Amino acid sequence: MTMDMTFLGTGSAYPSPHRGASALVLRAEGECWLFDCGEGTQTQLMRSQLRAGRITKVFISHLHGDHVFGLPGLLCTVSLNTNPSSVQDQPCVEIYGPRGLRHFLRVTLGLTGSQLLFPYAVHELEPTLDQSPPEGQLSHEMTTESGPLHPQEQPGRSICLDASSDCYLLFEDKKFVVRAFRLFHRVPSFGFSVQEQDRPGRLKTELLKELGLKPGPLYGRLKAGQSVTLDNGRVVLPSEVLEDPIPGRKVCILGDCSSVLGEGPLKACNRADILVHEATLGDEHHEKAVEHGHSTPKMAAAVAQACCARRLVLYHFSQRYKPCALQKEGDDDDVVELQRQAEDALDGSGIEVTLAEDFFTLPIPLRRPQ
Amino acid sequence: MTMDMTFLGTGSAYPSPHRGASALVLRAEGECWLFDCGEGTQTQLMRSQLRAGRITKVFISHLHGDHVFGLPGLLCTVSLNTNPSSVQDQPCVEIYGPRGLRHFLRVTLGLTGSQLLFPYAVHELEPTLDQSPPEGQLSHEMTTESGPLHPQEQPGRSICLDASSDCYLLFEDKKFVVRAFRLFHRVPSFGFSVQEQDRPGRLKTELLKELGLKPGPLYGRLKAGQSVTLDNGRVVLPSEVLEDPIPGRKVCILGDCSSVLGEGPLKACNRADILVHEATLGDEHHEKAVEHGHSTPKMAAAVAQACCARRLVLYHFSQRYKPCALQKEGDDDDVVELQRQAEDALDGSGIEVTLAEDFFTLPIPLRRPQ
Ligand SMILES: [Zn+2]
Ligand SMILES: [Zn+2]
Ligand SMILES: [Zn+2]
Ligand SMILES: [Zn+2]
Repeated sequence: MTMDMTFLGTGSAYPSPHRGASALVLRAEGECWLFDCGEGTQTQLMRSQLRAGRITKVFISHLHGDHVFGLPGLLCTVSLNTNPSSVQDQPCVEIYGPRGLRHFLRVTLGLTGSQLLFPYAVHELEPTLDQSPPEGQLSHEMTTESGPLHPQEQPGRSICLDASSDCYLLFEDKKFVVRAFRLFHRVPSFGFSVQEQDRPGRLKTELLKELGLKPGPLYGRLKAGQSVTLDNGRVVLPSEVLEDPIPGRKVCILGDCSSVLGEGPLKACNRADILVHEATLGDEHHEKAVEHGHSTPKMAAAVAQACCARRLVLYHFSQRYKPCALQKEGDDDDVVELQRQAEDALDGSGIEVTLAEDFFTLPIPLRRPQ
Repeated sequence: MTMDMTFLGTGSAYPSPHRGASALVLRAEGECWLFDCGEGTQTQLMRSQLRAGRITKVFISHLHGDHVFGLPGLLCTVSLNTNPSSVQDQPCVEIYGPRGLRHFLRVTLGLTGSQLLFPYAVHELEPTLDQSPPEGQLSHEMTTESGPLHPQEQPGRSICLDASSDCYLLFEDKKFVVRAFRLFHRVPSFGFSVQEQDRPGRLKTELLKELGLKPGPLYGRLKAGQSVTLDNGRVVLPSEVLEDPIPGRKVCILGDCSSVLGEGPLKACNRADILVHEATLGDEHHEKAVEHGHSTPKMAAAVAQACCARRLVLYHFSQRYKPCALQKEGDDDDVVELQRQAEDALDGSGIEVTLAEDFFTLPIPLRRPQ
């Protein structure tokens, strides 16, 4: 099963002609999951090879405009691309984000008379009081929805921090477990951990043939973990005929932050194949970065190291950093320098560092059986 | 005094890489006035030669997403470009639009924790019940602002239709009178008429010299309409020494519509130098256009003719019409055909037709004294 990630916007604060505002798409099993949706994301999607209509889940890390202003328009355009004759079959678009997101969507879609050809639900993460300075917290008055649901809105859940895991469990199905965890930023911000479920190893076909089992439905039962009794009474256990299981991949995407909060993030990101972390400003601007609730490459590297990630991907660059392709000899701010700073900090750790650029696609290869 | 208009987005329904969503800037006397602000307008502004920081007034024709989703982000980015040391001197950004716009901005700016370095005020136009089908009207429940003003919000006015003029008077100062008028669309939609005040004619300098008056402060008094008494007791009247006044220009910008409502629009647009009118679909799609509350070139031409405009500018094209530069031989939908349809309808009228494209700038020359 292929899995990859495409960055639609890698700029911070606002979209520019050179860098879109925050947005990336994780593709797995034919589904597209969108992480953050700054203004202009729908246009970036059109410029990319991805199809907006395939977005089934949306995750919003925090309610800053450069991460959410594009969401109402994106939903409207996805709806315009929906075949009106298949409205009955449209799955609900599940949207996860901080408390306040439901009200944001209800008001923006409602006042603009936006009707969608699919249902949506907003599942809100309840922040804790230490997740931002007090002035960054939204009052309950501001986030309480008055009036009826939007016509296409389905009731969403309110998800609280699970104290034992220090995480928010967003959902778990046969393929994935997705969790959120707390970050410290100017407003409550979250990271997301997408954990693919382990999958059974390959069948030892030679052995099966020796046992007299031919390809057919029994193969499927064995692969599904059920034992099979042969005509001669011999019971074949899945563990006999299956290779080692294929460990699921783990992709972690962190929103804006100057630090992580509690043990949750490190646990949720432990041994991540990919850790996507912001690096708004270079190490030489450490103080300014922290003052604005942001990170430098060195800070991102420390998180990658603490959770033993395999690859650190940097994004959310200040608009002062031009994309490599537009970089000129002698430019003061060189985005490649951000990569070097992270690499220096990770020297000897074996953790690789990648710079994200708009429209960059990162394949996420299967793990080998352990 | 130079005056011009730059189109930042000429597409309907949503922004695409080829056509931005609705937005245009009228420049006069060093001020920039923004008309509509679809998603991506701030990025289109950056791509243009205009400076976002100069925007002092915003006019929103109606609350469809393709005309308003870019406004919160644009305000945030203008603020980021504001010099923090000149915060005291920042003029209030005056925003005009339909009822509901104030709530839209308060919620979007509020939930995203967006602080602005300048004050803003939203002056709401109260629609009438016949301005859209009933389902397009916003309930008072949806538009009633609860809670306090946004920290940078100043109280705005609520402007009702003036029955005698069938118009909304937005403001009048020494340079301009700006009015709004009603259009019929799926939701309440408005047009705007920007009328420059007439200005005194040039001084007849030869005559002044004959009278013994030398260039100096007295020239200014005459030009300002005051009479001047010479040393010999002779009273010089402004009318004696001024050429005919220079009539003010008139620019009218209509939001989405399939027709105008009442006498207001025709009065407000009478003899407009420029009439900007939507032409979402070609004449062959008349039925579909009207069904969606939109116009065809022929319909736009009829409005231009009814108000004796000098030039009709078409915009808000369905995204099926590619810009001329990207048009290929044999393409089904040809935007130039829209121009031809309007020209055919206006044959013999002397009204010129212009197609707007993204980043197209139209100079608006001074009128000659009549
Ligand atoms: Zn950000
Ligand atoms: Zn942020
Ligand atoms: Zn429109
Ligand atoms: Zn509209």
